[in-house]
Amino acid sequence: MYIGIDIGGTKIAAGLVTREGELRYKEETVTNSSEGFDRVYKQIQDLVRSLYQHQMNAEQSEDIVAIGIGIPGITNPHTGDVKRCINLDWDEVPLKVRLEQDFSLPVSLANDATVAGMAEFVVGQSNLYQDAILLTLGTGIGASIMQSGNILLGSHGIASEIGHMIVGENFYNCNCGRNGCLETFSSSRGIIAYTQMRLDQGATSLLRQNISRKNPLNGRMIFEAALGGDSLAKEVIQRMVHYLALGMINLVTVLDPEIILIGGGLSGAGDQFLQDLISEFEGLKYYQGVSLPKVEIAKLKNDAGIIGAAMYAKWKS
Amino acid sequence: MYIGIDIGGTKIAAGLVTREGELRYKEETVTNSSEGFDRVYKQIQDLVRSLYQHQMNAEQSEDIVAIGIGIPGITNPHTGDVKRCINLDWDEVPLKVRLEQDFSLPVSLANDATVAGMAEFVVGQSNLYQDAILLTLGTGIGASIMQSGNILLGSHGIASEIGHMIVGENFYNCNCGRNGCLETFSSSRGIIAYTQMRLDQGATSLLRQNISRKNPLNGRMIFEAALGGDSLAKEVIQRMVHYLALGMINLVTVLDPEIILIGGGLSGAGDQFLQDLISEFEGLKYYQGVSLPKVEIAKLKNDAGIIGAAMYAKWKS
Repeated sequence: MYIGIDIGGTKIAAGLVTREGELRYKEETVTNSSEGFDRVYKQIQDLVRSLYQHQMNAEQSEDIVAIGIGIPGITNPHTGDVKRCINLDWDEVPLKVRLEQDFSLPVSLANDATVAGMAEFVVGQSNLYQDAILLTLGTGIGASIMQSGNILLGSHGIASEIGHMIVGENFYNCNCGRNGCLETFSSSRGIIAYTQMRLDQGATSLLRQNISRKNPLNGRMIFEAALGGDSLAKEVIQRMVHYLALGMINLVTVLDPEIILIGGGLSGAGDQFLQDLISEFEGLKYYQGVSLPKVEIAKLKNDAGIIGAAMYAKWKS
Repeated sequence: MYIGIDIGGTKIAAGLVTREGELRYKEETVTNSSEGFDRVYKQIQDLVRSLYQHQMNAEQSEDIVAIGIGIPGITNPHTGDVKRCINLDWDEVPLKVRLEQDFSLPVSLANDATVAGMAEFVVGQSNLYQDAILLTLGTGIGASIMQSGNILLGSHGIASEIGHMIVGENFYNCNCGRNGCLETFSSSRGIIAYTQMRLDQGATSLLRQNISRKNPLNGRMIFEAALGGDSLAKEVIQRMVHYLALGMINLVTVLDPEIILIGGGLSGAGDQFLQDLISEFEGLKYYQGVSLPKVEIAKLKNDAGIIGAAMYAKWKS
């Protein structure tokens, strides 16, 4: 049995996961991030104690062998501990070290996108692929890359930051300070910004009726309006899909994977979105003899963070 | 002792290489590619026999343990044999199978860019890096990628085709049929095409004096004119460097390597080129905390194909 912990800016979720990746039990708590690392560490410690207690009382009690943690930031590749989590205001904090001391178990940390990929590749796709990519489309764009069966971490722990791949010129700069990053075109923040700019310029759209101060423009509204035939929304989605396909084909030129999985909040946009994306992607094939990877929607939705963290701990041990 | 063979469209070079990567002896022959696979196979067979003969007569005779071959095309990841070499008009030919039968030795094939990387990473950089990229800037742009000490081949044997990463919009299409591939901006073919277009449009340049039917525009002329202060040539190189740096930073977002090595014909363009490239590359950093890889000129020039093929055979065995 493994413990998987998913640390986010708003909540911490932790669970007991079998070596096959089945979540048996979970608990969660609201992150007290404003009170500093020691306070959050105490919350994590309490969750782990509670999971231990639960496991001891379980009918078939099986030893807990390792703890895996997904963090909203990057790990230090030398120490394996937290390097930086901007949302939590953590800088080189001893999360791994203290948990290993307190519970006498191996503890493995990884970025939350890496961990989501682990869940998807190992459990969602049942280890079927050795070379796979998970793209997570949400407020930004993240990725997890598996190469020859290994998760790609990079030499400074910052591989797979494909939301910052430059794919064109955009009308506004990325929050990284540069222009043209993939996530400024194809994340929910990206499509909202473009739609808002077009509305401000006076474009005709049914979206105008739906937006209010209480109900601001969001990604779901744009997708629904596009499905309803709204021409601005259709144009916005087409633009998003074009740049996403471009980012995907650029990844293919570098990595040549077997499959690309689409996850994250926007991945639920529906069949039309997936069809359009595949069609645009295949249109960007760089020569006829090339074999493109399959493109599918990721399978795991909830609890992928907990399951992936546990599977990461299993992979590392 | 290993045999390394470098098969090109114009010549085949083969040599005896120690396990440390030292080339002890080599022979080469002009490729009879127009006469089909059987004729070229005979040439390769003759070269291997001759190397055997030489090795038997050597003072310290050491057994030959494997043969490595770099091919100007792609291998079939299932069979490990030739999938396609366009310049040689080879399609699924039994090069590996026949050599293994004829010489009773393990034979390993890889793409020539992959093999060049092997030479550079293992011998040129003395195995110092586990995560490294070699970019070869010539008529096109190729790459070899090492990740956690393994050469990245991809699931269909077509990884590292980074010349076809789309990085912008260009005034002419790539020979792959698409627009905006890195090699249309930053290869020698790319800078020649752009310079020619600007000259055709009437741009002022000292290059006009140097070009004739006998002496057509080439990459070296453009670099020399830029060093001499020619404003068009300087602009051409600046544009080339900008897109190359962009392709490099995009690779960093995906792979997070320790070092990027610049090889190929254009890598000899001089210190100014390397300084400009590093400066442009560092200016594209996507956040201040990120650690960028070192950028250096590749060390191995001649014989990298033979040495790399031998080192590839060693790595595979």
